[in-house]
Amino acid sequence: MKKLMNAANDVVDEMIEGYVSAYPGYVKIHDKNKRSVISSKPVRQGKVGVVIGGGSGHEPAFMGLIGKGFVDGVPVGNVFASPPPDPILEVTRSVNGGAGVIYMYGNYAGDCMNFDMAAELADMEGIHVETVLVTDDVASASKEQAHRRRGIAGTFLVFKSAGAAADKGLPLDEVVRVARKANDHIRTMGVALSPCAVPQTLKPSFVLGEDEMEIGLGIHGEPGVERGRLKTADEVADELLGKIVRDMPLAGGDRVAVMINGLGSTPYMDLFVVFRRVARQLGELGVTIHRSFVGEFVTSLEMGGCSVSVMKLDDELAELVDYPADTPMYVQM
Amino acid sequence: MKKLMNAANDVVDEMIEGYVSAYPGYVKIHDKNKRSVISSKPVRQGKVGVVIGGGSGHEPAFMGLIGKGFVDGVPVGNVFASPPPDPILEVTRSVNGGAGVIYMYGNYAGDCMNFDMAAELADMEGIHVETVLVTDDVASASKEQAHRRRGIAGTFLVFKSAGAAADKGLPLDEVVRVARKANDHIRTMGVALSPCAVPQTLKPSFVLGEDEMEIGLGIHGEPGVERGRLKTADEVADELLGKIVRDMPLAGGDRVAVMINGLGSTPYMDLFVVFRRVARQLGELGVTIHRSFVGEFVTSLEMGGCSVSVMKLDDELAELVDYPADTPMYVQM
Repeated sequence: MKKLMNAANDVVDEMIEGYVSAYPGYVKIHDKNKRSVISSKPVRQGKVGVVIGGGSGHEPAFMGLIGKGFVDGVPVGNVFASPPPDPILEVTRSVNGGAGVIYMYGNYAGDCMNFDMAAELADMEGIHVETVLVTDDVASASKEQAHRRRGIAGTFLVFKSAGAAADKGLPLDEVVRVARKANDHIRTMGVALSPCAVPQTLKPSFVLGEDEMEIGLGIHGEPGVERGRLKTADEVADELLGKIVRDMPLAGGDRVAVMINGLGSTPYMDLFVVFRRVARQLGELGVTIHRSFVGEFVTSLEMGGCSVSVMKLDDELAELVDYPADTPMYVQM
Repeated sequence: MKKLMNAANDVVDEMIEGYVSAYPGYVKIHDKNKRSVISSKPVRQGKVGVVIGGGSGHEPAFMGLIGKGFVDGVPVGNVFASPPPDPILEVTRSVNGGAGVIYMYGNYAGDCMNFDMAAELADMEGIHVETVLVTDDVASASKEQAHRRRGIAGTFLVFKSAGAAADKGLPLDEVVRVARKANDHIRTMGVALSPCAVPQTLKPSFVLGEDEMEIGLGIHGEPGVERGRLKTADEVADELLGKIVRDMPLAGGDRVAVMINGLGSTPYMDLFVVFRRVARQLGELGVTIHRSFVGEFVTSLEMGGCSVSVMKLDDELAELVDYPADTPMYVQM
């Protein structure tokens, strides 16, 4: 597989350099750590600092989302690898406005270990850190083991909800409550049509036949949990939504946010065809779509396929999902 | 090649249906023509109506850009095919606020024929239509034959400039002047790494070896004008920017907008690595980057590769490029 890159080992640093030089009004690299990307605006004293992160290769997540109404800083890991504690700690120090800091990230062992270590170090410096793991991926564990699920595209809406709450000036315990509620209210199911390749190997992360797809993919080039023949967009939409609704029942009168997330190489055309069916099926259930998100939010390099996320809204979550955001890679008026 | 679709002949209608159902606050399908997508907000009397269009498969262009500060309506063609006069005419009638209508599109024979025919029909109904063709693709004709060049990713910034001018309330002749100036001030050069496939055939539009790339691609799966071995991102950036600067010389003190446009399957990682080099080289020339656009703006389904666009700004163009836009697929505060 082909990439526009220079040396494989430089690609993350070069991406970060390109990113901050494209959006100097929004973001900068921390003086002391080149993998710590933070807002270029002054820290707002009294606001909860919002930190998200994880490996590279998921852009716009995570560093693309730094800005008003979203997050304040992002430690950046290697491709599909957790950032180590150092950049997390530097980001934490930088975004601390005296009201504590929330860490949010998808539930992966490496991220848990490194963010926990950074939180301990921050605590020793007197910075109060709370952590909320995102576990939206229905395919990755049973309902009884929901706390073991991975975080995939739904992370975006959990981050957005908590980021909005922090921007509204809510205290840390309330921002944490909102993030947990957002995570409890969201489910995601994905389908993979084609693999991605990390810069170091340029080899496909898995092999699928020309007539095959995989349901339940991850966002690191992992194969899914169930391989089958490639179905129509409507069949795929029904299968993904069906698994979500079996896990999180929806009833007439419910209000939801819907996200169709492209994994990297899936045309918008395909995403809208999938959205069409999801919207129709939700309509059949009497469920109202309050807001839609169709595009690339949490990618997996050039992987092909998409995921469907549904977030069940109450008034509080609806307001936070509607809250404006102004970041380099996601703007909402 | 694989797609998430149902029947190939339904894909455009289903995409449009999905799109408008995702963003009902922004867009709707015209009552009388299912290929006419228009703003769902009331027509602003006295404002120049802004119509862009072309084939499908370029999303977010063109229908993704309907909204305040951008465009008012979009006739939608089949995949990579011009819309016929009918949907163009219906859109024209709908967006006419009594101040005339501007048509803007990339310079392709089919679009020219159909939009011209619609303009004639509109004229017979007393709607004054002016047309500006976008010709930003340096690779597609010599400088002496610049009027024969194709429109590719640079169309986005020409549309944006004129859309902003119309939103500011400028009269039709001024909006036309701005669109022409924007087109005169922008150049684009692209590189293809991998092909796309239209839904009807699912066959790659061209074949490139694992170590090959093509400079000067189009946005319809066309191969480029010069095939070579795959180079590093820096070499590719230098080659693309070099061809732009040879065509439109830049000097110290110049101010530009830069766009790195992904063609469909190119990760943001690659786009930022390319941007990094372009920004460095412009810095060496003493050229200031006033605003950056990095992402997918004018795609070619799942084609791999990117283009570099540079727009030379004066105060007027800088203001228009900075002007806010609120559309389903592009928001700028």
